[in-house]
Amino acid sequence: MALIVAKFGGTSVADVERIERAAEKIVREVEAGNQVAVVVSAMSGVTNTLVGYCGEISKLHDLREYDVVVSSGEQITSGLMAMALQKRGIAARSWLGWQIPFKTNDMHGKARITDIQTEELKKRLGSGEVAVVPGFQGITEANRISTLGRGGSDTSAVALAAALEADRCDIYTDVDGVYTTDPRIVPQARKIKKISFEEMIELASLGSKVLQTRSVEIAMKQGVKLQVLSSFEDHIGSDMPGTLVVQESEIMEEELVSGIACSRDEAKITLLRVSDVPGVASKVFSPLGKAGVNVDMIVQNVSADGQFTDMTFTVSRADLPRALEVVEKLEEVEYEKILSSDNVSKVSVVGVGMISHPGVAEKMFTTLANKGINIQVISTSEIKISVLIEEDYTELAVRALHAAYGLEETA
Amino acid sequence: MALIVAKFGGTSVADVERIERAAEKIVREVEAGNQVAVVVSAMSGVTNTLVGYCGEISKLHDLREYDVVVSSGEQITSGLMAMALQKRGIAARSWLGWQIPFKTNDMHGKARITDIQTEELKKRLGSGEVAVVPGFQGITEANRISTLGRGGSDTSAVALAAALEADRCDIYTDVDGVYTTDPRIVPQARKIKKISFEEMIELASLGSKVLQTRSVEIAMKQGVKLQVLSSFEDHIGSDMPGTLVVQESEIMEEELVSGIACSRDEAKITLLRVSDVPGVASKVFSPLGKAGVNVDMIVQNVSADGQFTDMTFTVSRADLPRALEVVEKLEEVEYEKILSSDNVSKVSVVGVGMISHPGVAEKMFTTLANKGINIQVISTSEIKISVLIEEDYTELAVRALHAAYGLEETA
Repeated sequence: MALIVAKFGGTSVADVERIERAAEKIVREVEAGNQVAVVVSAMSGVTNTLVGYCGEISKLHDLREYDVVVSSGEQITSGLMAMALQKRGIAARSWLGWQIPFKTNDMHGKARITDIQTEELKKRLGSGEVAVVPGFQGITEANRISTLGRGGSDTSAVALAAALEADRCDIYTDVDGVYTTDPRIVPQARKIKKISFEEMIELASLGSKVLQTRSVEIAMKQGVKLQVLSSFEDHIGSDMPGTLVVQESEIMEEELVSGIACSRDEAKITLLRVSDVPGVASKVFSPLGKAGVNVDMIVQNVSADGQFTDMTFTVSRADLPRALEVVEKLEEVEYEKILSSDNVSKVSVVGVGMISHPGVAEKMFTTLANKGINIQVISTSEIKISVLIEEDYTELAVRALHAAYGLEETA
Repeated sequence: MALIVAKFGGTSVADVERIERAAEKIVREVEAGNQVAVVVSAMSGVTNTLVGYCGEISKLHDLREYDVVVSSGEQITSGLMAMALQKRGIAARSWLGWQIPFKTNDMHGKARITDIQTEELKKRLGSGEVAVVPGFQGITEANRISTLGRGGSDTSAVALAAALEADRCDIYTDVDGVYTTDPRIVPQARKIKKISFEEMIELASLGSKVLQTRSVEIAMKQGVKLQVLSSFEDHIGSDMPGTLVVQESEIMEEELVSGIACSRDEAKITLLRVSDVPGVASKVFSPLGKAGVNVDMIVQNVSADGQFTDMTFTVSRADLPRALEVVEKLEEVEYEKILSSDNVSKVSVVGVGMISHPGVAEKMFTTLANKGINIQVISTSEIKISVLIEEDYTELAVRALHAAYGLEETA
């Protein structure tokens, strides 16, 4: 017998029929002797509608009231899921954020979880009852509804799994696992059976939208075994059909490279001939941070003359106008010119095995060069190498790299 | 300065634009120096959609989960209304049922209000903050969401007004007041400026859908001054443009007859040649009550031979099949035959003045007779006379009676 947290995303509970199908899976888990807590998203489209209403009233609406409005989407699904389970003879009830309570800080709209009271839930689960918990929502110290930010239901599920000390957290979604790259770009992409948290975080943050990054971080920190699987196929989590995200040590055969990720949500800014003096980087990036602009890749070359250097960095496309505004107003930094472009994409090779294999980087650069793809910026970490290239070359680069590292399906 | 509870029904908050228009009215009330608590319904159509989801899953769904699902409609409107007020520079916040708390018993789906904690609300109202309260919802002793039944937002508003000791409860709706009869049937129908609680209850229960009966009963019991007014015209409650529902003693010039009501939601059942023995009525109506069938008019004639009598009663159309099932299974009552029909309607003359004027009834019967309308059943109370007639004659009867009692607009 295991205690499982099963999370169903928006497309998996898109309408009543799909909620019923999801309920069927839970019934099978219960019949297999497991205790189950279900975390549900809003029915697909509902959150967008609700967010739209708030935006219609004011772009600067009160985030406390925003949370009251948008959290209702998950509330609706919770009640319906509990009903669908009861209809199948399963004792079930919904547990809203304030009923658990599922406590967060008071950063409305993007709150952080602080504490989940599980005593009562554990008792109910132990008695065979299924708990249905709305994802994405919590309650603040001030007794007001909070939400965790878009995609926060993954985070709710993982945090609940950690608090319940669950044996596994199954994330049911519209894909059947994590692939070596986007199958829409490379049809031969292969489903990965086991992947490490570190690799998953890189893949998630690099544009693979399977899991919310924060949820993987929490899973890693709290040691929650995660499984990504499809809600549209005829299996349940306990059949282990998806991709398991686990500690690196649990992966027996380590692949050198586990996947190729790409992200088009990139823009680059270059400051030409910046005075090369100590503290200049901080003078550029502190104001950006204060303006809420998240800087990703940063490249600064050693200057040839010791006086001037070129500095390039990337931000998300949505942040480009704000970033440019900040940079143009910099007073303490002297430079000749600003260049910017959002016609770029980031392609990354990810794998925990690469740290001890310097050949990985070389293969990447050679492969891209052979296809005539120019690398604009390079950044590396222990488990990934990312390059910024012209956006039009994205698919070409991903296909070439996927083949070069031998990631194709080997049936 | 007055403390006002203003309630906006579904069509008055149908979309963001209407929510904003409703907010404008509240702003004007605040600018006039009033303290305001706003009670909102779900945006029109939302509750039906949510109720539909529950019905899709199961006709016999858990009412506790039903309440979780359907209460979210009002929750959404509350957050949006608070935002719309804030946008206009008014300090406002939403107060969900569990936050107030707005306590009810545990009859989920049709809960009764037991207690409303107003200490914090009063403090906030006193400091100039507008409180936005979702109608229709409360919280049980077991800390679960409850709802008051369809149309319950009127009841929420009146109960809140009573608890806050408000000076007035304004019910903004899609009609601009209570009329002497349905203006769709009689274009000359006149808006009533003041009406007594008793008359309003009769009109409400007789098919005039302006206010929920229960809300008027609570208003009467708790002495809450009610006003029905339109949210679509350019006035606010403090202009007193609608119909005021007050104690009978506050109405100076009493009309003999204040209105003509009609209801088509009627069905009749007749038991022919029932044994005329003591206790027979109880043997018929107790089982109906136990089956949840609400019996309205009951007529039993003195029997000619002292042995048999005919018994006729009416129920709502939806209850007819269930009522027939109960009656057909009666074991302790002997009768010859059951007749039933749902081709009937109830037309009523309502007025607090009629009790001391026997001529009212006579005028009703004569008027109907002159139009060739056959009266099937008659029932009377202190302030109304109702007759059951063939449904096809409804409009004819209403128009004739409206004219006979001189209720037309006198411009």
